[in-house]
Amino acid sequence: MVETVETIDLSHTTGLYYGPATISNGKVLHISGQPGNTNDGYVPDDYESQIHLCLFNLRKLIIAAGANIEHIAKLCVYIVNYDATNRKHAKPIQRFFGRHRPAQTLVPVPKLAVPSWLIEIEATLALPYPSLPPTLPVASEAYDVVIIGAGLAGLSAAHAVRKAGYSCVVLESRDRVGGKTWSQPLDDGAGIIDVGAGWINDTNQSRVYDLAKRYGAETIVQNTEGNCVLQSFDGSCSPFPYGELPDFDEPVKKNVAEIRDLCEAECQALDTWRPKNTELDAQTFEAFLLSKGAGKEALATATIWTRAMLGVEPSDLSALYFLNYCKSGGGLLQMRSDRKDGGQYLRIRQGTQHFALGLASDLPQGVVRLSSPVHTVVQEANSIIKVQTTEKIYAARKVITTVPGPALKNIDFYPALPPVKRAWSESLIHGYYTKAMMEFKSPFWVERGYCGLVQSFTGPAGVIRDSCSPLDKKYVLTCFMGGEPGRAWARLSNEERIKALLDQIGKVYGGVNVENEFRQMVAYEWVNDEWAGWGCPCTSLPPGVLDSLGGDSLRQSCGNLHFAGTETAGEWKGYMEGAIRSGERAAAEVAKELASAVSSRL
Amino acid sequence: MVETVETIDLSHTTGLYYGPATISNGKVLHISGQPGNTNDGYVPDDYESQIHLCLFNLRKLIIAAGANIEHIAKLCVYIVNYDATNRKHAKPIQRFFGRHRPAQTLVPVPKLAVPSWLIEIEATLALPYPSLPPTLPVASEAYDVVIIGAGLAGLSAAHAVRKAGYSCVVLESRDRVGGKTWSQPLDDGAGIIDVGAGWINDTNQSRVYDLAKRYGAETIVQNTEGNCVLQSFDGSCSPFPYGELPDFDEPVKKNVAEIRDLCEAECQALDTWRPKNTELDAQTFEAFLLSKGAGKEALATATIWTRAMLGVEPSDLSALYFLNYCKSGGGLLQMRSDRKDGGQYLRIRQGTQHFALGLASDLPQGVVRLSSPVHTVVQEANSIIKVQTTEKIYAARKVITTVPGPALKNIDFYPALPPVKRAWSESLIHGYYTKAMMEFKSPFWVERGYCGLVQSFTGPAGVIRDSCSPLDKKYVLTCFMGGEPGRAWARLSNEERIKALLDQIGKVYGGVNVENEFRQMVAYEWVNDEWAGWGCPCTSLPPGVLDSLGGDSLRQSCGNLHFAGTETAGEWKGYMEGAIRSGERAAAEVAKELASAVSSRL
Repeated sequence: MVETVETIDLSHTTGLYYGPATISNGKVLHISGQPGNTNDGYVPDDYESQIHLCLFNLRKLIIAAGANIEHIAKLCVYIVNYDATNRKHAKPIQRFFGRHRPAQTLVPVPKLAVPSWLIEIEATLALPYPSLPPTLPVASEAYDVVIIGAGLAGLSAAHAVRKAGYSCVVLESRDRVGGKTWSQPLDDGAGIIDVGAGWINDTNQSRVYDLAKRYGAETIVQNTEGNCVLQSFDGSCSPFPYGELPDFDEPVKKNVAEIRDLCEAECQALDTWRPKNTELDAQTFEAFLLSKGAGKEALATATIWTRAMLGVEPSDLSALYFLNYCKSGGGLLQMRSDRKDGGQYLRIRQGTQHFALGLASDLPQGVVRLSSPVHTVVQEANSIIKVQTTEKIYAARKVITTVPGPALKNIDFYPALPPVKRAWSESLIHGYYTKAMMEFKSPFWVERGYCGLVQSFTGPAGVIRDSCSPLDKKYVLTCFMGGEPGRAWARLSNEERIKALLDQIGKVYGGVNVENEFRQMVAYEWVNDEWAGWGCPCTSLPPGVLDSLGGDSLRQSCGNLHFAGTETAGEWKGYMEGAIRSGERAAAEVAKELASAVSSRL
Repeated sequence: MVETVETIDLSHTTGLYYGPATISNGKVLHISGQPGNTNDGYVPDDYESQIHLCLFNLRKLIIAAGANIEHIAKLCVYIVNYDATNRKHAKPIQRFFGRHRPAQTLVPVPKLAVPSWLIEIEATLALPYPSLPPTLPVASEAYDVVIIGAGLAGLSAAHAVRKAGYSCVVLESRDRVGGKTWSQPLDDGAGIIDVGAGWINDTNQSRVYDLAKRYGAETIVQNTEGNCVLQSFDGSCSPFPYGELPDFDEPVKKNVAEIRDLCEAECQALDTWRPKNTELDAQTFEAFLLSKGAGKEALATATIWTRAMLGVEPSDLSALYFLNYCKSGGGLLQMRSDRKDGGQYLRIRQGTQHFALGLASDLPQGVVRLSSPVHTVVQEANSIIKVQTTEKIYAARKVITTVPGPALKNIDFYPALPPVKRAWSESLIHGYYTKAMMEFKSPFWVERGYCGLVQSFTGPAGVIRDSCSPLDKKYVLTCFMGGEPGRAWARLSNEERIKALLDQIGKVYGGVNVENEFRQMVAYEWVNDEWAGWGCPCTSLPPGVLDSLGGDSLRQSCGNLHFAGTETAGEWKGYMEGAIRSGERAAAEVAKELASAVSSRL
């Protein structure tokens, strides 16, 4: 009999009497209704966490069948207790689709196959014809290692690779080095502005501080003298001393403190490199907080964290991912701190791009190739890996990519990245995140006894931080717009954006004529930057991915392709320190394997 | 305009405004949600019966479209009043799939299109490209009739065909004759054991009794002297005289008697050859019993019947099929009786394979070809039918297959069997059914005043029967393991199986040291026997098939292909008598048609 139907299985589905997915006539992929559970059947209580798990289960089967999200023809979404006024499924599904727009039907149902299931999604996909790997011509240049990206990860990797005695070239798609560090002189001559990464410290960020010393960077200690300000739900503002909690009512204060301490404790319990906790990962951070009794203010405070740190809402990402992200910076408190040992302790007067410029200038001429975006990476059968840019083909024994996960889709890999790598990189999300540097004629907040730090439940800026450089007469408040208020702000015209921020700053520091003090706003929207993977400072993962695939999956090499970049870091993810360490880690992998390849030939 | 969609109809669906199924672009079969009703719209009250009808409706459309179960890509199951703790759909659907694993989504719904519908299943199938019939080379031998199978049906047919003056050959896949009769000497010299069919009688089983006389078989009257034993739900045992009801409480006894008498009356009302009763056939036997007020003990008693007679649970088969099966043996009481006129009246000292060995030895050399499994049967346009085995191609004017229905899939038929024949043969199920012959040093049960007959609500054996041959000093209890307890027993190791049966026998005949008395266990698992169609003694039909297709469908010929075998018998289905009669019936059909072909040429 002619076989027309092939069953697709995952590791945990072979015992089912039906298939989780089938391919008919090699062309159509039929995916059984996927619920929001983990591989071992754990189902989180809340609907929103289930939606994320459900979509990840769908994604895994799509990848296992060799397909993409763009191949989805039709989705059927079954929802229990459907509430038309609270369509929580829409945003995650929309994000899952990206720009693809398949057909979709929503079916409210009284229940699903298992009582705890609240959502199930089935899908039909049109499979592509398998594409053959391109046959690239002979390479015009050959190196031991090709490094993709001249940010801090790529440049650090280049230094380490060369130090180990191997040749390399660094291919950078932009016309500058530095990646997500980008420093620009203010047009009024008042010093340098960082539109990307801005802060380091001089203790536990040892690698970046080494660079600061090596290249003579002048550091500016973050101002934490004087009061911070909390802007509450109704827009009203109240001062509180740095390092203390805002002036909530006592029961609220207690709840906020408990939730903060609980998050810190959960962070500290995790393995930084290989976090593992199925229940934590099955929940959104919001669901986790609510399950622990977070009240309105505690949730709003945690929302400030996720927006200002990753540009996402607490309902967008896995609790495990967020807590592990914090742990990578020493914990929630340390990563968020602006004081000694904290994530935001020092700024760089010359701008943080100074480090990348220094590293690049220390490499021989020709090692860094600007404006050389990589289109194609082919791992050939003979262990040679070819890298194609618009202008040239490079041959290498090893490739290190430092490209942010979401930007991997800019490159065609042959063979395709393995399923686990695809499942991870395609699940990564960037929220909305923009820093707007508001330059003023004077540091009026300092003059009034404020350190400049603002936390706002309303926005547009969720967090505001002092970024002055007194020696340059640069008086700047950096406004962090992240998550939903950030998106709302982004929809405004430039004039409206400025006005909205001045209004907020005016409200925070009542009595100041902010329009009169205002000089200019400098902002760069990383969400439109394809080389950054459409976001900054770091990607997030929705529920289910981290625990299912394992903490090492993103940084694990595939054949002769190695992965770096701050999101692959075990320590200080999302920071310059993480980028440098990731580049050095990848370089060490590469050097070790190249060395053993040599000795095995001896 | 190019037609891209073809509607598939059944005899009763042409009046619908929509199609029960469509084929799109010749490749994809879309089947509308199928409810659990009969062709004329009758819907049984109970969920489980509806599941069976629903699957049969699906099967009919699949067959009508020229497809197979293995072409199902996706199933969507809609269930009203879904209860996750009582997933009655799973087992029938799993059985329907066989080893195929399509995608599947279960959708609980508040109601369906018609208030009485409790389940509906829709399906998507990937159709195969039509395969051309093979062109077989010229046959090396030609006969009037090729008979497939040298069991009692095939050998009886061969004798009848030859007696009518036609040449024939009998192709047998095994290396022995006898089919599901198989007699083996006990290795301690204590006579013969029948691992297959074991009982006949000398009155209404006239054809097999003729063979017994012709070949000098010695008969042993089944022991019905002394007490039987009932093993109840809690494992406790109580004796009762043969022919009476067990010692239940009076109301229970009354209920059991009423249900038994009702089944007997329903049997007797049926036409043996062409039973017709839409309502009876739309229900499982269990649903029928419950609708008639069967209590716990009456249902357990009826379960003993279906397990010991067909290896199935009462929820697995149609009430009409079971009652008609009983009717074919003269009724429930007669078929189950171990006394004069009953189904289990006489055993054969030499073993029942003696009949087939006798019939084969009475045929000229070369008529029976052992180890000749048939792979392909091609009905050519010129009325020649070619039969291909591994070694040879035979040409015939007629073919009689005696292959059990489920084993027809071992043969490729060209053209494919007609839809009605496929719908029947593919719906046939074999339950789990194994006879384990427990040989003891003495007939300790007889010595204690028991006839040996045991009925058990618990198992592993649902029924135990004496199978002694005193002249041979053979003291055997035959344990019938059928249905779910049989499957559970089958999952044990051989040592555990023996222990489980000795434990049961020890409990039944308390006070006997059964381990001390035990000699050996002999058992053959017909469920693993591909030539028997993976089961014994006879196939069953789930609800809907018999009434929809008609009682004659399985035995009706297609072109020059004729059907025999005990399951096609009108009388004594599942018995040796039925096999012989079916072979003689098919031979008569063939002889009649061959004769009229000759006279029409005159």
